Amino acid sequence: MKTTNVKAFGTNAADAPLNEMKIDRRDVTAKDIEIEILYCGVCHSDLHTARNDWGFTMYPAVPGHEIVGRVTKIGSEVTKLKVGDIAGVGCLVDSCQTCDSCKKDLEQYCLTGWTGTYGGADKHLGGPTLGGYSEKIVVDEHFVLKVPANLDLAAVAPLLCAGITTWSPLRHWNVTKGSKVAVVGLGGLGHMAIKLAKGLGAEVTLFSRTPDKEKDAFELGADAVVISTDENQMQSVSGKFDLIIDTVPYVHDVNPYVATLNISGTLVLVGYLGGLEPILNTVPMILGRKSVAGSLIGGIAETQEMLDFCGEHNIVSEIEIIKMQDINEAYERMIKSDVRYRFVIDMASLK
Amino acid sequence: MKTTNVKAFGTNAADAPLNEMKIDRRDVTAKDIEIEILYCGVCHSDLHTARNDWGFTMYPAVPGHEIVGRVTKIGSEVTKLKVGDIAGVGCLVDSCQTCDSCKKDLEQYCLTGWTGTYGGADKHLGGPTLGGYSEKIVVDEHFVLKVPANLDLAAVAPLLCAGITTWSPLRHWNVTKGSKVAVVGLGGLGHMAIKLAKGLGAEVTLFSRTPDKEKDAFELGADAVVISTDENQMQSVSGKFDLIIDTVPYVHDVNPYVATLNISGTLVLVGYLGGLEPILNTVPMILGRKSVAGSLIGGIAETQEMLDFCGEHNIVSEIEIIKMQDINEAYERMIKSDVRYRFVIDMASLK
Repeated sequence: MKTTNVKAFGTNAADAPLNEMKIDRRDVTAKDIEIEILYCGVCHSDLHTARNDWGFTMYPAVPGHEIVGRVTKIGSEVTKLKVGDIAGVGCLVDSCQTCDSCKKDLEQYCLTGWTGTYGGADKHLGGPTLGGYSEKIVVDEHFVLKVPANLDLAAVAPLLCAGITTWSPLRHWNVTKGSKVAVVGLGGLGHMAIKLAKGLGAEVTLFSRTPDKEKDAFELGADAVVISTDENQMQSVSGKFDLIIDTVPYVHDVNPYVATLNISGTLVLVGYLGGLEPILNTVPMILGRKSVAGSLIGGIAETQEMLDFCGEHNIVSEIEIIKMQDINEAYERMIKSDVRYRFVIDMASLK
Repeated sequence: MKTTNVKAFGTNAADAPLNEMKIDRRDVTAKDIEIEILYCGVCHSDLHTARNDWGFTMYPAVPGHEIVGRVTKIGSEVTKLKVGDIAGVGCLVDSCQTCDSCKKDLEQYCLTGWTGTYGGADKHLGGPTLGGYSEKIVVDEHFVLKVPANLDLAAVAPLLCAGITTWSPLRHWNVTKGSKVAVVGLGGLGHMAIKLAKGLGAEVTLFSRTPDKEKDAFELGADAVVISTDENQMQSVSGKFDLIIDTVPYVHDVNPYVATLNISGTLVLVGYLGGLEPILNTVPMILGRKSVAGSLIGGIAETQEMLDFCGEHNIVSEIEIIKMQDINEAYERMIKSDVRYRFVIDMASLK
């Protein structure tokens, strides 16, 4: 297969910092779009993959799945975008497109396994897929999104992962005008959950362990902040919420949040992969028909819907722009939660 | 308040057997219906209440909340039934009827607390409400059900608790023709779950720990039986079910069942009140948008809907008729799961 060699930033080992490297991109096939990457958001998964925190990283690892760029070449059968258009790529670059999930526009639940934008099994070139910390990327048009022209392109990038990951449960669990939504955790995902739920017309509450995020939460659009370590405050929202989006990425007790769900309400986990400790108590779940659920990113049609919605409602992420060369320092700051609320790499710095 | 003294069967202590006693029933008020009880099903809750297994029993305890009888008197404003009609009473005899839940016909989730048919706080006479192991009962017409005339009345009784407890989640989670439903546990609730899911047109699988219930399950209408201790059989239904009704009343590992849920599927617990051990793993929940939920009996309108459906589809419970005087022995047999599938007391035996 014909390829082009391009500049990227990645690593060949869990304990090595990210450095400039050269990688191959396939030449466009009939359905492919080649994108010059302008901005790439920095997700916690990038760091976990680079450092092999989950134990399944294939090297070289080139992270990045919040990609915004400009179309530079299209295959002969491409109809979605043309050269010069602004395009987005999120967490997925491939799926079988024939299984029940794919047929329902739920590529993120593809029954044969979807291909991640980085660290997946590249169906074209073999080896791991290589992500957005690079000059260019080539992606099947099905997995390329149109980006509303009115938005700040750098601040759009995090919508492709943090945005869709919170949008999908808001839509699946039918959040609408007047819905009572709570968000647990104010990071990259949490701040988008507030903005998107608010955009949908919901009444939005942030659960926070400390009062120091209160000012930010209100600026982002939250209607209320509840300090989760304050029993009186927790009691005051007992039985209130239709949907809780729990973005916390580490093990934590969800039982106090279940108590704040309304009858038939759902707490949906989008950040924590592992066992629920302390153990989940079924009593309030049965006595109030409450659910605890999980949700993973979102499908391509849903991602487009979210981008279009953000275009109409002028919603973007809160970001801090960095240079590609500052990525290792950015990772260290992310570990300390020292980012409000997403780093975005200006890929011009890689030239 | 004027009352009438009637015969009943109950107990005054956790360690005493049930015996004949006399209890008071209020005279009908404007909205009340007096019912001569013909049959009363025997639910596990009856036994747990009589023996104070949950620690909150008020004595005297007169169990019984699967009641079918004949209307003997009605209040001046009653419109639902007339003297001589066949009537049913389930788990609820009162609720506020004004809160958000009650206004949505979800009296079982009444925000001010519903009144159980036995062991609740009697709003009319004070003390605990006294249930269906008695000659007569007086109930607000809102909580009285119409019983389809074509059904075997003794076998209708268990529909009022075991039936509605499984019907409500089947309806809430939109089970319809072609839905893939699994049932965990084949007892009073499980056998009704199979019949009702089948009635709704679902493809129904029973999960059982041992093969000895296979024949019964097929006779009840199940399309398949999966032995949950057989890893190959469990693997063969991986990702299959839209809804799992888990009727098991003791602590058990739900993780193997979550693995058999389809994308966006729900496992709903209707039998087990307590902590989920071993701990629930969120990984398959997030990767497949799966939910774990609870559900409690059902509302009055939903119970009527279920009874009407059973009338149309000729669905009743599988029962063994006993005399009131045999109740203590029946409890011992229930503890050993020696009942297929519900004891029903012929109340003529109390006369």
